[in-house]
Amino acid sequence: MTAFNFELFKTDGNARRGRVTTAHGTFETPNFMATATAATVKAMNVDSVRATGAELAICNTYHLMLRPTAERVADLGGLHKFMNWSGPIVTDSGGFQVMSLSKLRELNEEGVTFRSHVDGSSHKLTPERSMEIQNLLDSDITMCLDECTPHPATHEQAASSMQMSMRWAERCRKAFVKREGYGLFGIIQGGVYEDLRTESVEKLSALKLEGFGIGGLAVGEGQEEMFRVLDFTLPLLAPEKPRYLMGVGTPSDIVGAVMRGIDMFDCVMPTRAGRTGRGYTHRGTLNIRNARHADDPRPLDERCTCQTCKDYSRAYLHHLFRTEEILGAMLLTQHNLHVYQNLMKGLRDAIAGETLEDFVKTFHEEQALGDITAL
Amino acid sequence: MTAFNFELFKTDGNARRGRVTTAHGTFETPNFMATATAATVKAMNVDSVRATGAELAICNTYHLMLRPTAERVADLGGLHKFMNWSGPIVTDSGGFQVMSLSKLRELNEEGVTFRSHVDGSSHKLTPERSMEIQNLLDSDITMCLDECTPHPATHEQAASSMQMSMRWAERCRKAFVKREGYGLFGIIQGGVYEDLRTESVEKLSALKLEGFGIGGLAVGEGQEEMFRVLDFTLPLLAPEKPRYLMGVGTPSDIVGAVMRGIDMFDCVMPTRAGRTGRGYTHRGTLNIRNARHADDPRPLDERCTCQTCKDYSRAYLHHLFRTEEILGAMLLTQHNLHVYQNLMKGLRDAIAGETLEDFVKTFHEEQALGDITAL
Repeated sequence: MTAFNFELFKTDGNARRGRVTTAHGTFETPNFMATATAATVKAMNVDSVRATGAELAICNTYHLMLRPTAERVADLGGLHKFMNWSGPIVTDSGGFQVMSLSKLRELNEEGVTFRSHVDGSSHKLTPERSMEIQNLLDSDITMCLDECTPHPATHEQAASSMQMSMRWAERCRKAFVKREGYGLFGIIQGGVYEDLRTESVEKLSALKLEGFGIGGLAVGEGQEEMFRVLDFTLPLLAPEKPRYLMGVGTPSDIVGAVMRGIDMFDCVMPTRAGRTGRGYTHRGTLNIRNARHADDPRPLDERCTCQTCKDYSRAYLHHLFRTEEILGAMLLTQHNLHVYQNLMKGLRDAIAGETLEDFVKTFHEEQALGDITAL
Repeated sequence: MTAFNFELFKTDGNARRGRVTTAHGTFETPNFMATATAATVKAMNVDSVRATGAELAICNTYHLMLRPTAERVADLGGLHKFMNWSGPIVTDSGGFQVMSLSKLRELNEEGVTFRSHVDGSSHKLTPERSMEIQNLLDSDITMCLDECTPHPATHEQAASSMQMSMRWAERCRKAFVKREGYGLFGIIQGGVYEDLRTESVEKLSALKLEGFGIGGLAVGEGQEEMFRVLDFTLPLLAPEKPRYLMGVGTPSDIVGAVMRGIDMFDCVMPTRAGRTGRGYTHRGTLNIRNARHADDPRPLDERCTCQTCKDYSRAYLHHLFRTEEILGAMLLTQHNLHVYQNLMKGLRDAIAGETLEDFVKTFHEEQALGDITAL
């Protein structure tokens, strides 16, 4: 078996170029995960996901504990076999979705009881149960159960929420079944308050976990505030452990966070946008449903090397979205994931070559151009 | 350029093994077309369609004339380029969908005026306009505009409807732009009446078209009655031209029709079933939403060589359908099309080896077994 490991190859400013090794293979950092909430990247088959360059998938504890259940996934040989993804898998703890999706939730020191958004059935999620579920799912990277502190929160609210999450992290540490190649990440909370983030980092560092999640960001505070929190939080972290900024973000968010030293990202944006007609290009975003694309024989992004851009025109994609054909969601999701993975590769290469500053400058200049004009 | 051509290699009883050559390549017969109504096989990308063994696609004049319009497809380089399908394409004439989908339709000798089911806009389809549209789409096999006689119809109704369709076929013949490698098929009507089918065959044969469609079947008359009509109609047809049974059908329909001498088929069943959770196996059909599949680690069909059966369990497919994930429709459509294409290959090989009788016997015996029992 392989030990869980993070190698840091190179830095450029605060940005880091590395590699994480897990029981199910490696992934290069900075890395953007393919979002596979319910054990599927929406509208994508596994070969297409791989073709975008994705190496790491993230699945959702809350969704999977309800359907098909963690016990069922375990009986079927674990998540990798179930969803035919042989690479590394991260699972979140379920805490975020319990608070955002479930009904009649009640949170106390022990954990959270809630009713399923699917059928109203009653469930309980504690730190111990979250560890058990993620173990049953066989995820390579398990996330501690935490409470995602809402924004805005007073210092008192953020402190009390963070401190409970830190007590939960200790319980997660105890309940987590150590296995070669598997890791447990703590999640730093503390809202926008430097003293609280510092306290959170100290408590998690004492637990000697395999990596850090940074939670409670991208919840409405804005990019500037998010970067400010990263600026005072990241220098507190041991450099030899990977850092995962949870639920982030736009290409611009990712570029700024990589510059500050983040190694891992996940976000539903490229897949959700792909199902709703929004496409990412090196010149910003576009809405393929817009009438100006109806006669346009050009690809979404002339510079893009994805299968969608190689084989299909904007006019065809426009047609598929106007006629509500599933292939529209399939092709645009594939393109958007490719754009994200291509951005990550560009960032990795720039850090390795110590050309990150130029890369970022060009990135922002091109994004500011806006989409190509209609023919 | 290549001439439009049908080669008949071999017969076994009335069944025929052949090959059709078109401007965009060849397809082996008997052949089942991939249904690409709105210029996409629903929930499938082109590579996956090809992987099922499909060689021929069928697109829909009615749907495409409304969106994106035939003129737009022509401006974009034709249907093959638009939808990235380099192989041969059949287009139907639009007559069937005008009658089944549109609003406020009015049919007379000149043609049919109707309002779009999409936006209520007014349109007119005549034999000449149908030929023009199919020419703009650049389809390899153009179908004559006809009226699909409803079932049941009196002899008088069926006669009058068929005779108008035959007058329309003459107009189609005149309006069709002859091009090397492109063909026009007439459509035999006449309901369930032998004298009317005979009259229809005679009139179409006089037009010296490239092939025959058999229309007005699979409209509620039942399999036995459909086979009875084929039994007296097919011997009337010149053997050197391909015969296309339109809109048919179940695997059992196809087997019976191939035995009677049909060369080409199209049907929405395998793709529509794939989106609604119905799977085809060599032991008949199953509903993957059924709870008995929730824990089943076995593939849909242990004998099937498709990607879905190689990589995924019934339990996973069940999960995808229960959670309404798009990948469920993608994987089950791929499987169902593979089953259909595999059946066609089996039929072709059996005819070539003069073992059709045994093949058909085994087919019916296995279908009668019913799906494998739950674990």
